Amino acid sequence: METHRFITAAVQLCAGSDKQLNLDKAESFTAEAARHDARLVVLPEVFLWRGPRTEEHNGAEPIPGAATDHLGKLARSLGLYLLAGSILELSGGDKVFNTSVLFNPHGEIIARYRKMHLFDIDLPGHITIRESDTRAAGDAVVTVPTELGVIGMSVCYDLRFPELYRRLTWAGAQIVAIPSAFTFPTGAAHWEILVRARAIENQVYVIAPDQIGRSPSGVVDFGNSMIVDPWGKPLARAADREMIIFAEIDREYQQKVRRELPCLEHAGFGK
Amino acid sequence: METHRFITAAVQLCAGSDKQLNLDKAESFTAEAARHDARLVVLPEVFLWRGPRTEEHNGAEPIPGAATDHLGKLARSLGLYLLAGSILELSGGDKVFNTSVLFNPHGEIIARYRKMHLFDIDLPGHITIRESDTRAAGDAVVTVPTELGVIGMSVCYDLRFPELYRRLTWAGAQIVAIPSAFTFPTGAAHWEILVRARAIENQVYVIAPDQIGRSPSGVVDFGNSMIVDPWGKPLARAADREMIIFAEIDREYQQKVRRELPCLEHAGFGK
Repeated sequence: METHRFITAAVQLCAGSDKQLNLDKAESFTAEAARHDARLVVLPEVFLWRGPRTEEHNGAEPIPGAATDHLGKLARSLGLYLLAGSILELSGGDKVFNTSVLFNPHGEIIARYRKMHLFDIDLPGHITIRESDTRAAGDAVVTVPTELGVIGMSVCYDLRFPELYRRLTWAGAQIVAIPSAFTFPTGAAHWEILVRARAIENQVYVIAPDQIGRSPSGVVDFGNSMIVDPWGKPLARAADREMIIFAEIDREYQQKVRRELPCLEHAGFGK
Repeated sequence: METHRFITAAVQLCAGSDKQLNLDKAESFTAEAARHDARLVVLPEVFLWRGPRTEEHNGAEPIPGAATDHLGKLARSLGLYLLAGSILELSGGDKVFNTSVLFNPHGEIIARYRKMHLFDIDLPGHITIRESDTRAAGDAVVTVPTELGVIGMSVCYDLRFPELYRRLTWAGAQIVAIPSAFTFPTGAAHWEILVRARAIENQVYVIAPDQIGRSPSGVVDFGNSMIVDPWGKPLARAADREMIIFAEIDREYQQKVRRELPCLEHAGFGK
Protein backbone atom coordinates (compact mmCIF):
# COMPACT_ATOMS: atom_id res chain seq x y z
CA MET A 1 0.00 0.00 0.00
CA GLU A 2 1.27 3.42 -0.92
CA THR A 3 2.24 5.67 1.97
CA HIS A 4 2.24 9.38 1.17
CA ARG A 5 3.23 10.79 4.55
CA PHE A 6 5.84 9.37 6.82
CA ILE A 7 8.79 10.20 9.06
CA THR A 8 12.30 9.86 7.73
CA ALA A 9 15.58 10.09 9.62
CA ALA A 10 19.16 10.92 8.69
CA VAL A 11 22.03 9.82 10.92
CA GLN A 12 25.13 11.98 11.35
CA LEU A 13 28.19 10.04 12.50
CA CYS A 14 31.87 10.49 13.15
CA ALA A 15 32.83 6.96 12.11
CA GLY A 16 36.35 5.62 12.63
CA SER A 17 38.17 2.46 11.67
CA ASP A 18 36.58 0.24 14.36
CA LYS A 19 33.80 -1.48 12.44
CA GLN A 20 32.06 -2.94 15.47
CA LEU A 21 31.92 0.43 17.19
CA ASN A 22 30.56 2.09 14.04
CA LEU A 23 27.98 -0.63 13.58
CA ASP A 24 26.89 -0.35 17.22
CA LYS A 25 26.41 3.39 16.84
CA ALA A 26 24.52 3.04 13.58
CA GLU A 27 22.31 0.39 15.15
CA SER A 28 21.62 2.49 18.21
CA PHE A 29 20.64 5.53 16.13
CA THR A 30 18.48 3.41 13.85
CA ALA A 31 16.67 1.99 16.87
CA GLU A 32 16.15 5.54 18.14
CA ALA A 33 14.71 6.46 14.75
CA ALA A 34 12.32 3.50 14.94
CA ARG A 35 11.12 4.67 18.37
CA HIS A 36 10.23 7.97 16.67
CA ASP A 37 8.25 6.03 14.05
CA ALA A 38 10.71 6.57 11.20
CA ARG A 39 9.89 4.44 8.17
CA LEU A 40 13.10 5.25 6.27
CA VAL A 41 16.48 5.72 7.93
CA VAL A 42 19.53 6.88 5.96
CA LEU A 43 23.08 6.35 7.24
CA PRO A 44 26.01 8.43 5.92
CA GLU A 45 28.70 7.44 3.45
CA VAL A 46 31.36 5.04 4.86
CA PHE A 47 29.38 4.71 8.12
CA LEU A 48 30.81 1.19 8.57
CA TRP A 49 34.47 2.03 8.15
CA ARG A 50 36.17 5.39 7.70
CA GLY A 51 39.93 5.12 7.74
CA PRO A 52 43.23 5.72 5.96
CA ARG A 53 43.21 5.40 2.20
CA THR A 54 45.99 2.78 2.32
CA GLU A 55 43.89 0.43 4.48
CA GLU A 56 40.67 0.57 2.51
CA HIS A 57 40.92 -3.05 1.45
CA ASN A 58 40.80 -4.09 5.10
CA GLY A 59 37.77 -1.89 5.61
CA ALA A 60 35.90 -3.41 2.69
CA GLU A 61 33.26 -6.17 2.74
CA PRO A 62 31.60 -8.48 0.29
CA ILE A 63 27.99 -7.53 -0.50
CA PRO A 64 26.06 -9.53 0.49
CA GLY A 65 28.22 -10.51 3.46
CA ALA A 66 28.42 -10.40 7.23
CA ALA A 67 27.80 -6.65 7.47
CA THR A 68 24.79 -6.61 5.18
CA ASP A 69 23.38 -9.73 6.90
CA HIS A 70 23.54 -7.85 10.17
CA LEU A 71 21.97 -4.70 8.70
CA GLY A 72 19.22 -6.72 7.05
CA LYS A 73 18.31 -8.25 10.40
CA LEU A 74 18.28 -4.78 11.92
CA ALA A 75 15.89 -3.46 9.24
CA ARG A 76 13.65 -6.49 9.70
CA SER A 77 13.59 -6.37 13.49
CA LEU A 78 12.68 -2.67 13.43
CA GLY A 79 10.36 -3.00 10.41
CA LEU A 80 11.77 -0.07 8.43
CA TYR A 81 13.59 0.80 5.24
CA LEU A 82 17.29 1.19 5.97
CA LEU A 83 19.56 2.89 3.49
CA ALA A 84 23.10 1.93 4.48
CA GLY A 85 24.74 5.09 3.13
CA SER A 86 27.83 3.35 1.95
CA ILE A 87 29.98 0.32 2.56
CA LEU A 88 33.31 -0.19 0.82
CA GLU A 89 32.61 -3.23 -1.34
CA LEU A 90 35.20 -5.82 -2.36
CA SER A 91 35.17 -5.95 -6.14
CA GLY A 92 37.37 -8.98 -6.77
CA GLY A 93 40.02 -6.61 -8.08
CA ASP A 94 42.52 -4.24 -6.52
CA LYS A 95 40.04 -1.47 -6.01
CA VAL A 96 36.86 -1.27 -3.96
CA PHE A 97 33.45 0.10 -4.84
CA ASN A 98 31.78 2.66 -2.61
CA THR A 99 28.34 1.12 -2.40
CA SER A 100 25.04 2.28 -0.99
CA VAL A 101 22.64 -0.54 -0.02
CA LEU A 102 18.90 -0.29 0.55
CA PHE A 103 17.09 -2.83 2.78
CA ASN A 104 13.33 -3.18 2.92
CA PRO A 105 11.41 -3.86 6.17
CA HIS A 106 11.73 -7.60 5.49
CA GLY A 107 15.50 -7.20 5.70
CA GLU A 108 16.06 -7.88 2.02
CA ILE A 109 18.53 -5.97 -0.12
CA ILE A 110 16.32 -4.30 -2.73
CA ALA A 111 18.93 -2.04 -4.34
CA ARG A 112 22.58 -1.24 -4.38
CA TYR A 113 24.25 1.77 -5.94
CA ARG A 114 27.97 2.09 -6.60
CA LYS A 115 29.17 5.71 -6.45
CA MET A 116 29.72 6.97 -9.97
CA HIS A 117 31.94 9.99 -9.42
CA LEU A 118 35.29 9.59 -7.68
CA PHE A 119 36.57 12.54 -5.65
CA ASP A 120 40.01 13.60 -6.83
CA ILE A 121 40.86 17.03 -5.51
CA ASP A 122 43.96 19.04 -4.75
CA LEU A 123 43.34 22.18 -2.72
CA PRO A 124 46.86 23.20 -1.68
CA GLY A 125 47.03 23.89 2.05
CA HIS A 126 43.62 22.33 2.65
CA ILE A 127 43.05 18.84 1.30
CA THR A 128 44.41 16.48 -1.28
CA ILE A 129 42.37 13.36 -1.95
CA ARG A 130 42.55 10.87 -4.78
CA GLU A 131 39.73 8.36 -4.38
CA SER A 132 40.54 6.91 -7.77
CA ASP A 133 43.80 5.50 -6.35
CA THR A 134 41.87 2.93 -4.32
CA ARG A 135 38.32 2.94 -5.60
CA ALA A 136 36.46 1.95 -8.74
CA ALA A 137 33.46 3.85 -10.09
CA GLY A 138 30.02 2.38 -10.66
CA ASP A 139 28.18 2.93 -13.91
CA ALA A 140 24.48 2.47 -13.14
CA VAL A 141 21.85 5.04 -12.18
CA VAL A 142 19.63 3.47 -9.52
CA THR A 143 16.04 4.28 -8.62
CA VAL A 144 13.94 2.01 -6.41
CA PRO A 145 10.15 1.91 -6.28
CA THR A 146 8.90 1.41 -2.72
CA GLU A 147 5.60 1.93 -0.94
CA LEU A 148 7.10 5.16 0.43
CA GLY A 149 7.81 6.53 -3.06
CA VAL A 150 10.54 6.11 -5.63
CA ILE A 151 13.96 6.47 -4.02
CA GLY A 152 16.90 7.76 -6.06
CA MET A 153 20.39 6.81 -4.90
CA SER A 154 23.61 8.84 -4.95
CA VAL A 155 26.68 9.37 -2.76
CA CYS A 156 28.56 12.51 -1.67
CA TYR A 157 30.65 13.90 -4.56
CA ASP A 158 27.85 12.91 -6.97
CA LEU A 159 26.14 16.02 -5.58
CA ARG A 160 28.23 18.21 -7.89
CA PHE A 161 26.79 16.63 -11.04
CA PRO A 162 23.30 17.95 -11.80
CA GLU A 163 22.90 15.55 -14.73
CA LEU A 164 22.82 12.54 -12.38
CA TYR A 165 19.88 14.04 -10.44
CA ARG A 166 18.10 14.80 -13.72
CA ARG A 167 18.50 11.14 -14.69
CA LEU A 168 17.16 10.05 -11.28
CA THR A 169 14.23 12.43 -11.61
CA TRP A 170 13.46 11.37 -15.18
CA ALA A 171 13.47 7.78 -13.88
CA GLY A 172 10.77 8.79 -11.40
CA ALA A 173 12.67 9.58 -8.19
CA GLN A 174 10.58 11.42 -5.61
CA ILE A 175 13.02 11.06 -2.71
CA VAL A 176 16.77 11.34 -3.28
CA ALA A 177 19.38 10.14 -0.82
CA ILE A 178 22.84 11.75 -0.73
CA PRO A 179 24.74 9.99 2.07
CA SER A 180 28.04 11.83 2.35
CA ALA A 181 31.41 12.35 3.96
CA PHE A 182 31.74 15.88 2.60
CA THR A 183 35.01 17.57 3.48
CA PHE A 184 35.02 20.70 5.59
CA PRO A 185 36.38 23.42 3.27
CA THR A 186 34.28 22.33 0.31
CA GLY A 187 31.31 21.68 2.57
CA ALA A 188 31.41 25.16 4.08
CA ALA A 189 31.48 26.63 0.56
CA HIS A 190 29.09 24.32 -1.30
CA TRP A 191 27.13 21.75 0.74
CA GLU A 192 23.94 23.60 1.60
CA ILE A 193 23.75 25.37 -1.78
CA LEU A 194 24.05 22.17 -3.79
CA VAL A 195 21.82 20.03 -1.57
CA ARG A 196 19.05 22.62 -1.75
CA ALA A 197 19.57 23.24 -5.47
CA ARG A 198 19.06 19.53 -6.21
CA ALA A 199 15.81 19.62 -4.23
CA ILE A 200 14.59 22.83 -5.92
CA GLU A 201 15.41 22.05 -9.53
CA ASN A 202 14.10 18.47 -9.33
CA GLN A 203 11.29 19.13 -6.85
CA VAL A 204 12.32 16.13 -4.79
CA TYR A 205 12.82 15.46 -1.11
CA VAL A 206 16.54 15.21 -0.36
CA ILE A 207 17.88 13.21 2.58
CA ALA A 208 21.55 14.01 3.06
CA PRO A 209 23.26 12.55 6.15
CA ASP A 210 26.89 13.54 6.45
CA GLN A 211 29.90 12.47 8.45
CA ILE A 212 31.24 15.02 10.91
CA GLY A 213 34.68 15.57 12.40
CA ARG A 214 38.06 14.07 11.78
CA SER A 215 38.49 10.77 10.00
CA PRO A 216 41.45 8.50 10.85
CA SER A 217 42.58 9.46 7.32
CA GLY A 218 43.14 12.98 8.62
CA VAL A 219 40.31 14.54 6.62
CA VAL A 220 37.75 16.59 8.52
CA ASP A 221 34.13 16.28 7.39
CA PHE A 222 31.55 19.03 7.46
CA GLY A 223 28.48 17.59 9.20
CA ASN A 224 25.42 19.77 8.65
CA SER A 225 23.32 16.77 7.64
CA MET A 226 20.10 18.00 6.08
CA ILE A 227 16.64 16.96 5.02
CA VAL A 228 15.18 19.32 2.41
CA ASP A 229 11.69 19.49 0.94
CA PRO A 230 10.80 19.83 -2.78
CA TRP A 231 10.47 23.62 -2.44
CA GLY A 232 14.08 23.70 -1.20
CA LYS A 233 13.23 24.39 2.42
CA PRO A 234 15.56 22.75 4.93
CA LEU A 235 13.24 20.78 7.23
CA ALA A 236 16.05 19.62 9.52
CA ARG A 237 19.74 20.25 9.96
CA ALA A 238 22.13 18.52 12.36
CA ALA A 239 24.10 20.28 15.07
CA ASP A 240 27.88 19.80 15.19
CA ARG A 241 27.88 16.35 16.81
CA GLU A 242 26.82 12.78 16.15
CA MET A 243 23.05 12.84 16.12
CA ILE A 244 19.89 11.97 14.25
CA ILE A 245 17.56 14.38 12.47
CA PHE A 246 13.95 13.79 11.51
CA ALA A 247 11.48 15.24 9.05
CA GLU A 248 8.14 14.39 7.57
CA ILE A 249 7.94 13.48 3.92
CA ASP A 250 4.63 14.44 2.34
CA ARG A 251 4.26 13.40 -1.27
CA GLU A 252 0.96 15.22 -1.62
CA TYR A 253 2.82 18.44 -0.83
CA GLN A 254 5.38 17.41 -3.44
CA GLN A 255 2.61 16.97 -6.01
CA LYS A 256 1.33 20.45 -5.15
CA VAL A 257 4.79 21.96 -5.71
CA ARG A 258 5.13 20.15 -9.03
CA ARG A 259 1.67 21.23 -10.15
CA GLU A 260 2.02 24.90 -9.18
CA LEU A 261 5.51 25.44 -10.56
CA PRO A 262 5.66 22.92 -13.42
CA CYS A 263 9.35 23.34 -14.25
CA LEU A 264 9.84 19.58 -14.65
CA GLU A 265 7.12 19.55 -17.27
CA HIS A 266 8.82 22.54 -18.93
CA ALA A 267 12.06 20.58 -18.96
CA GLY A 268 10.34 17.79 -20.86
CA PHE A 269 9.73 15.49 -17.88
CA GLY A 270 7.05 12.93 -18.57
CA LYS A 271 7.25 13.41 -22.34
CA MET B 1 43.86 40.75 -27.10
CA GLU B 2 42.66 38.51 -24.31
CA THR B 3 41.81 40.23 -21.03
CA HIS B 4 41.86 37.97 -17.98
CA ARG B 5 40.97 40.48 -15.27
CA PHE B 6 38.39 43.18 -15.59
CA ILE B 7 35.51 44.91 -13.83
CA THR B 8 31.96 43.90 -14.60
CA ALA B 9 28.74 45.58 -13.53
CA ALA B 10 25.14 44.44 -13.07
CA VAL B 11 22.32 46.96 -13.09
CA GLN B 12 19.26 46.51 -10.86
CA LEU B 13 16.20 48.39 -12.08
CA CYS B 14 12.52 48.86 -11.33
CA ALA B 15 11.49 49.37 -14.93
CA GLY B 16 7.97 50.45 -15.85
CA SER B 17 6.06 50.88 -19.08
CA ASP B 18 7.68 54.23 -20.04
CA LYS B 19 10.39 53.17 -22.47
CA GLN B 20 12.17 56.48 -22.58
CA LEU B 21 12.41 56.67 -18.81
CA ASN B 22 13.71 53.10 -18.65
CA LEU B 23 16.24 53.78 -21.37
CA ASP B 24 17.43 56.96 -19.64
CA LYS B 25 17.97 55.07 -16.40
CA ALA B 26 19.76 52.20 -18.11
CA GLU B 27 21.96 54.71 -19.94
CA SER B 28 22.75 56.63 -16.78
CA PHE B 29 23.74 53.47 -14.88
CA THR B 30 25.80 52.22 -17.82
CA ALA B 31 27.67 55.54 -17.91
CA GLU B 32 28.28 55.23 -14.17
CA ALA B 33 29.67 51.73 -14.75
CA ALA B 34 31.99 53.09 -17.42
CA ARG B 35 33.30 55.73 -14.99
CA HIS B 36 34.21 52.80 -12.70
CA ASP B 37 36.09 51.17 -15.59
CA ALA B 38 33.58 48.39 -16.21
CA ARG B 39 34.29 46.49 -19.42
CA LEU B 40 31.06 44.47 -19.38
CA VAL B 41 27.71 45.84 -18.19
CA VAL B 42 24.65 43.62 -17.87
CA LEU B 43 21.12 45.06 -17.72
CA PRO B 44 18.21 43.03 -16.31
CA GLU B 45 15.42 41.22 -18.16
CA VAL B 46 12.76 43.53 -19.69
CA PHE B 47 14.81 46.60 -18.71
CA LEU B 48 13.34 48.49 -21.70
CA TRP B 49 9.67 47.82 -21.01
CA ARG B 50 8.03 46.04 -18.09
CA GLY B 51 4.28 46.23 -18.21
CA PRO B 52 0.96 44.41 -18.31
CA ARG B 53 0.87 41.12 -20.18
CA THR B 54 -1.95 42.36 -22.43
CA GLU B 55 0.15 45.27 -23.72
CA GLU B 56 3.32 43.37 -24.50
CA HIS B 57 2.99 43.89 -28.22
CA ASN B 58 3.17 47.65 -27.68
CA GLY B 59 6.26 47.18 -25.54
CA ALA B 60 8.04 45.10 -28.17
CA GLU B 61 10.62 46.25 -30.73
CA PRO B 62 12.18 44.94 -33.89
CA ILE B 63 15.80 43.79 -33.43
CA PRO B 64 17.71 45.48 -34.89
CA GLY B 65 15.60 48.61 -34.51
CA ALA B 66 15.48 52.02 -32.86
CA ALA B 67 16.17 50.69 -29.36
CA THR B 68 19.14 48.53 -30.34
CA ASP B 69 20.52 51.37 -32.51
CA HIS B 70 20.48 53.57 -29.45
CA LEU B 71 22.07 50.92 -27.22
CA GLY B 72 24.75 50.21 -29.82
CA LYS B 73 25.71 53.87 -29.86
CA LEU B 74 25.84 53.84 -26.07
CA ALA B 75 28.17 50.83 -26.03
CA ARG B 76 30.39 52.44 -28.66
CA SER B 77 30.52 55.84 -27.00
CA LEU B 78 31.50 54.25 -23.68
CA GLY B 79 33.74 51.60 -25.26
CA LEU B 80 32.34 48.61 -23.38
CA TYR B 81 30.45 45.37 -23.85
CA LEU B 82 26.78 45.94 -23.10
CA LEU B 83 24.48 42.99 -22.51
CA ALA B 84 20.96 44.35 -22.89
CA GLY B 85 19.33 41.85 -20.53
CA SER B 86 16.19 41.53 -22.53
CA ILE B 87 14.02 43.37 -24.97
CA LEU B 88 10.64 42.02 -26.08
CA GLU B 89 11.23 41.30 -29.75
CA LEU B 90 8.58 41.47 -32.46
CA SER B 91 8.53 38.08 -34.14
CA GLY B 92 6.27 38.79 -37.08
CA GLY B 93 3.61 36.65 -35.42
CA ASP B 94 1.18 37.14 -32.55
CA LYS B 95 3.73 36.42 -29.88
CA VAL B 96 6.96 38.17 -28.95
CA PHE B 97 10.37 36.75 -28.15
CA ASN B 98 12.13 37.71 -24.93
CA THR B 99 15.55 38.48 -26.33
CA SER B 100 18.90 39.25 -24.76
CA VAL B 101 21.27 41.26 -27.00
CA LEU B 102 25.03 41.62 -26.64
CA PHE B 103 26.84 44.68 -28.08
CA ASN B 104 30.60 44.90 -28.44
CA PRO B 105 32.57 48.11 -27.77
CA HIS B 106 32.17 49.03 -31.44
CA GLY B 107 28.43 49.10 -30.90
CA GLU B 108 27.77 46.04 -33.02
CA ILE B 109 25.28 43.34 -32.10
CA ILE B 110 27.46 40.24 -31.69
CA ALA B 111 24.86 37.88 -30.24
CA ARG B 112 21.22 37.58 -29.43
CA TYR B 113 19.57 34.93 -27.30
CA ARG B 114 15.84 34.25 -27.18
CA LYS B 115 14.71 32.92 -23.80
CA MET B 116 14.10 29.20 -24.08
CA HIS B 117 11.94 28.48 -21.04
CA LEU B 118 8.64 30.30 -20.59
CA PHE B 119 7.46 30.96 -17.06
CA ASP B 120 4.01 29.51 -16.48
CA ILE B 121 3.24 29.30 -12.81
CA ASP B 122 0.20 29.22 -10.58
CA LEU B 123 0.92 29.77 -6.91
CA PRO B 124 -2.57 30.36 -5.47
CA GLY B 125 -2.65 33.48 -3.31
CA HIS B 126 0.76 34.61 -4.57
CA ILE B 127 1.23 34.80 -8.31
CA THR B 128 -0.21 33.44 -11.49
CA ILE B 129 1.76 34.08 -14.66
CA ARG B 130 1.49 32.52 -18.09
CA GLU B 131 4.25 33.87 -20.26
CA SER B 132 3.35 31.38 -22.96
CA ASP B 133 0.09 33.28 -23.59
CA THR B 134 2.01 36.18 -25.14
CA ARG B 135 5.54 34.96 -25.75
CA ALA B 136 7.31 32.48 -27.99
CA ALA B 137 10.30 30.43 -26.87
CA GLY B 138 13.72 30.45 -28.52
CA ASP B 139 15.47 27.24 -29.40
CA ALA B 140 19.18 28.09 -29.61
CA VAL B 141 21.88 27.87 -26.92
CA VAL B 142 24.13 30.90 -27.33
CA THR B 143 27.75 31.34 -26.31
CA VAL B 144 29.86 34.26 -27.53
CA PRO B 145 33.65 34.36 -27.65
CA THR B 146 34.98 37.80 -26.68
CA GLU B 147 38.32 39.16 -25.58
CA LEU B 148 36.89 39.09 -22.01
CA GLY B 149 36.15 35.38 -22.19
CA VAL B 150 33.34 33.23 -23.55
CA ILE B 151 29.98 34.60 -22.48
CA GLY B 152 27.01 32.26 -22.07
CA MET B 153 23.54 33.74 -22.36
CA SER B 154 20.35 32.92 -20.45
CA VAL B 155 17.35 34.75 -19.01
CA CYS B 156 15.55 34.48 -15.64
CA TYR B 157 13.42 31.30 -15.52
CA ASP B 158 16.14 29.47 -17.48
CA LEU B 159 17.94 29.44 -14.12
CA ARG B 160 15.82 26.46 -13.02
CA PHE B 161 17.16 24.21 -15.78
CA PRO B 162 20.64 22.93 -14.98
CA GLU B 163 20.96 21.24 -18.37
CA LEU B 164 21.03 24.62 -20.15
CA TYR B 165 24.04 25.72 -18.06
CA ARG B 166 25.75 22.41 -18.76
CA ARG B 167 25.28 23.02 -22.49
CA LEU B 168 26.67 26.55 -22.11
CA THR B 169 29.63 25.23 -20.14
CA TRP B 170 30.30 22.40 -22.59
CA ALA B 171 30.27 25.06 -25.33
CA GLY B 172 33.03 26.86 -23.46
CA ALA B 173 31.22 29.49 -21.39
CA GLN B 174 33.38 31.07 -18.70
CA ILE B 175 31.02 33.89 -17.78
CA VAL B 176 27.27 33.32 -17.65
CA ALA B 177 24.68 36.09 -17.68
CA ILE B 178 21.27 35.56 -16.09
CA PRO B 179 19.41 38.87 -16.50
CA SER B 180 16.15 38.42 -14.63
CA ALA B 181 12.83 39.72 -13.41
CA PHE B 182 12.52 37.02 -10.74
CA THR B 183 9.30 37.19 -8.75
CA PHE B 184 9.40 37.82 -5.04
CA PRO B 185 8.03 34.61 -3.48
CA THR B 186 10.04 32.34 -5.74
CA GLY B 187 13.06 34.62 -5.48
CA ALA B 188 13.04 34.56 -1.69
CA ALA B 189 12.91 30.76 -1.78
CA HIS B 190 15.22 29.97 -4.72
CA TRP B 191 17.18 32.87 -6.27
CA GLU B 192 20.42 32.84 -4.29
CA ILE B 193 20.56 29.04 -4.08
CA LEU B 194 20.17 28.51 -7.82
CA VAL B 195 22.41 31.39 -8.91
CA ARG B 196 25.21 30.12 -6.68
CA ALA B 197 24.62 26.47 -7.65
CA ARG B 198 25.06 27.31 -11.35
CA ALA B 199 28.35 29.04 -10.52
CA ILE B 200 29.58 26.16 -8.33
CA GLU B 201 28.67 23.20 -10.50
CA ASN B 202 29.92 24.83 -13.71
CA GLN B 203 32.80 26.77 -12.16
CA VAL B 204 31.76 29.90 -14.03
CA TYR B 205 31.33 33.55 -13.11
CA VAL B 206 27.63 34.38 -12.93
CA ILE B 207 26.34 37.90 -13.53
CA ALA B 208 22.68 38.07 -12.50
CA PRO B 209 21.03 41.50 -12.52
CA ASP B 210 17.41 41.43 -11.41
CA GLN B 211 14.44 43.74 -11.49
CA ILE B 212 13.19 44.94 -8.11
CA GLY B 213 9.80 46.13 -6.94
CA ARG B 214 6.38 46.22 -8.47
CA SER B 215 5.85 45.95 -12.20
CA PRO B 216 2.89 47.70 -13.84
CA SER B 217 1.69 44.11 -14.40
CA GLY B 218 1.22 43.85 -10.63
CA VAL B 219 4.01 41.35 -10.10
CA VAL B 220 6.67 42.21 -7.50
CA ASP B 221 10.25 41.26 -8.35
CA PHE B 222 12.88 40.16 -5.87
CA GLY B 223 15.96 42.29 -6.56
CA ASN B 224 19.05 40.85 -4.86
CA SER B 225 21.07 41.13 -8.08
CA MET B 226 24.26 39.15 -7.67
CA ILE B 227 27.70 38.58 -9.14
CA VAL B 228 29.12 35.20 -8.10
CA ASP B 229 32.59 33.74 -8.62
CA PRO B 230 33.39 30.20 -9.86
CA TRP B 231 33.77 28.94 -6.27
CA GLY B 232 30.21 30.09 -5.60
CA LYS B 233 31.16 33.10 -3.51
CA PRO B 234 28.86 36.10 -3.92
CA LEU B 235 31.20 38.97 -4.82
CA ALA B 236 28.43 41.57 -4.88
CA ARG B 237 24.75 41.79 -4.03
CA ALA B 238 22.39 44.70 -4.56
CA ALA B 239 20.52 46.48 -1.79
CA ASP B 240 16.74 46.84 -2.09
CA ARG B 241 16.70 49.72 -4.57
CA GLU B 242 17.69 50.59 -8.12
CA MET B 243 21.46 50.48 -8.19
CA ILE B 244 24.55 49.10 -9.82
CA ILE B 245 26.89 46.45 -8.40
CA PHE B 246 30.46 45.76 -9.43
CA ALA B 247 32.91 42.88 -9.18
CA GLU B 248 36.20 41.84 -10.64
CA ILE B 249 36.29 38.87 -12.98
CA ASP B 250 39.58 36.99 -12.83
CA ARG B 251 39.87 34.12 -15.26
CA GLU B 252 43.18 33.00 -13.83
CA TYR B 253 41.39 32.42 -10.52
CA GLN B 254 38.76 30.51 -12.48
CA GLN B 255 41.45 28.30 -13.99
CA LYS B 256 42.82 27.64 -10.49
CA VAL B 257 39.37 26.55 -9.26
CA ARG B 258 38.92 24.27 -12.27
CA ARG B 259 42.38 22.76 -11.83
CA GLU B 260 42.11 22.14 -8.07
CA LEU B 261 38.59 20.72 -8.06
CA PRO B 262 38.33 19.14 -11.53
CA CYS B 263 34.62 18.27 -11.39
CA LEU B 264 34.07 19.45 -14.98
CA GLU B 265 36.73 17.03 -16.14
CA HIS B 266 35.03 14.32 -14.05
CA ALA B 267 31.76 15.14 -15.78
CA GLY B 268 33.39 14.53 -19.14
CA PHE B 269 34.01 18.18 -20.03
CA GLY B 270 36.64 18.59 -22.73
CA LYS B 271 36.40 14.95 -23.83
